Amino acid sequence: MTQRELAPLRRRYDVDELVSHARQGQARAVARLISLVEDGAPELRALAAALARDTGRADVIGVTGAPGVGKSSTVGVLVTALRAVGKTVGVLAVDPSSPFSGGALLGDRVRMQEHATDSGVFIRSMATRGHLGGLAAATPQALRVLDAAGCDVVLVETVGVGQAEVDVVAVADTTVVLLAPGMGDGIQAVKAGILEVADVFVVNKADREGSDQTVRDLKYMISLGRRGVAGPSWRTPIVRTVATRAEGVAELLGAIKEHRGWMRGHGELEARRQRRAEAEVEAIALAQLRAKLGDLRRDSNTFGALQGLAKRVVLGELDVYRAAAELIAELGGSSRPANQGVGRP
Amino acid sequence: MTQRELAPLRRRYDVDELVSHARQGQARAVARLISLVEDGAPELRALAAALARDTGRADVIGVTGAPGVGKSSTVGVLVTALRAVGKTVGVLAVDPSSPFSGGALLGDRVRMQEHATDSGVFIRSMATRGHLGGLAAATPQALRVLDAAGCDVVLVETVGVGQAEVDVVAVADTTVVLLAPGMGDGIQAVKAGILEVADVFVVNKADREGSDQTVRDLKYMISLGRRGVAGPSWRTPIVRTVATRAEGVAELLGAIKEHRGWMRGHGELEARRQRRAEAEVEAIALAQLRAKLGDLRRDSNTFGALQGLAKRVVLGELDVYRAAAELIAELGGSSRPANQGVGRP
Repeated sequence: MTQRELAPLRRRYDVDELVSHARQGQARAVARLISLVEDGAPELRALAAALARDTGRADVIGVTGAPGVGKSSTVGVLVTALRAVGKTVGVLAVDPSSPFSGGALLGDRVRMQEHATDSGVFIRSMATRGHLGGLAAATPQALRVLDAAGCDVVLVETVGVGQAEVDVVAVADTTVVLLAPGMGDGIQAVKAGILEVADVFVVNKADREGSDQTVRDLKYMISLGRRGVAGPSWRTPIVRTVATRAEGVAELLGAIKEHRGWMRGHGELEARRQRRAEAEVEAIALAQLRAKLGDLRRDSNTFGALQGLAKRVVLGELDVYRAAAELIAELGGSSRPANQGVGRP
Repeated sequence: MTQRELAPLRRRYDVDELVSHARQGQARAVARLISLVEDGAPELRALAAALARDTGRADVIGVTGAPGVGKSSTVGVLVTALRAVGKTVGVLAVDPSSPFSGGALLGDRVRMQEHATDSGVFIRSMATRGHLGGLAAATPQALRVLDAAGCDVVLVETVGVGQAEVDVVAVADTTVVLLAPGMGDGIQAVKAGILEVADVFVVNKADREGSDQTVRDLKYMISLGRRGVAGPSWRTPIVRTVATRAEGVAELLGAIKEHRGWMRGHGELEARRQRRAEAEVEAIALAQLRAKLGDLRRDSNTFGALQGLAKRVVLGELDVYRAAAELIAELGGSSRPANQGVGRP
């Protein structure tokens, strides 16, 4: 049985009901809503409308780094520490390289063990499936689900340090970049673009040989990166941790808190959230435009418009640029009714 | 001095004046207008508007094939034969693989020699330069210039048999695909997608060894290609030529004329021109949308709209899908004034 054949059998969820259950903190509703986001389900627009007002309440912390640096352990001890001070925590583990969700796989089960019975923790893996615009576009919506569920803090964990990961952690208010001693490639990867997004550096496995060198390398890189930066800039701190023994966690949370304070003091939190929303709206618009043009020949309304415009071009009544402009106007116009049908909560 | 620095110095042509001169058959005006098309000059929209009514008068014959099969020689003898019966001829030599125009290079000069003093022939090379959407998008406009100049027949010659070439010859009413004996890769290339676009096959250099085998291979391929085709289909003929000695040219023109008659008889000419215009409008719309979104952050009007929409998303007043739809509507709306300013002749 193919995907296409299965599609009609898929249950259509009542989005408002699920959102209502998620707001009451029901983990199952939260998991289902994130699945809808991940799948790029038809309910996604209704979900976005329902979740709009849940935007921006949680503190969002991004955690990224090369494989093997200890991201999962670090996230684990951060969750424990945040729970200890009564915070509700969401964890969104995003794997841009995998087409499969870890949602029902080993990853979550292992992570779950410690926090499985804790109703104050939501843990969910997410991979790219059907979401238009990929994970970078899906992550903010998944975040809003966790926001709606009442998470005080959401940790967005993503593996690797490529552009896809940078895009994913771009949703964070504070981005923590992890390194480990003796991983030369880790430093290389950091050089390749993560420096700009790092608000806090963590040298994990700080008990290992070479950690001093890693810290020195980082300090040098930060000093290079700082050149040419005008105005009051955030001085990216380097925190040493041994996540497996929960060492340095208080210092890490302290650095994150300090960064948050700095952002508030410099209007940077609002500026970041504004830039983030701009990028999100732009990315969705681009994805929609691409899909619309791709769907053109399947959509009888727009295709009719295209046929009519082309006919006038053939007859010499209209030039192709005007025809294209009218087609674009048609696309813009036809995109509105589809959204007006979506009820706000 | 960089391109950017040079740009303001570039002369802004009076498009209507140039079009008027082109309509009087001035080769220089024709050449300048095709340069504007090739460059994707700002005057292109005005040009398209001015040329709209010149669409579809010329017979358009596409000539393609692998390097070395004798396209230029074939085009040369076709021009001579068409001139002999009093037809005005345009030749558009398109090289999708080259970023440089052959307009002022050797190619044209060599071609020109025979027809240089003939005011009934326009020859022009074209390569991809600044045109949004590439050569496939530029070719139809260049064609309209030659149409306006009063060409009875336009030969569009393109080298190679890849997708880019298929896209270029897609402007033709009749597409002639050339092969030569002993070029196994020629047949391979034909297999790779040109079969569908070929209306007439030419086995050039038919005096060489292996030409019978090439004809047999082609016949076999055509028989395979025909399988599953329903309705009254065109039976792609195979013409043998020796272009360097002008042998088989009458037969080739006969096959082209027969194809034209078949198209008219089956409503296929109108259907093709309609499909072509649809593809052209769609391609320009897509290129414009991409450019618009790329320009978003440089265009203060649209960027202001994006900022405003993003602000409402941050405040939870609007969901990202609605914001994206409004942005798309904004793009569609803002594309009209830019075109309304362009005067029609």
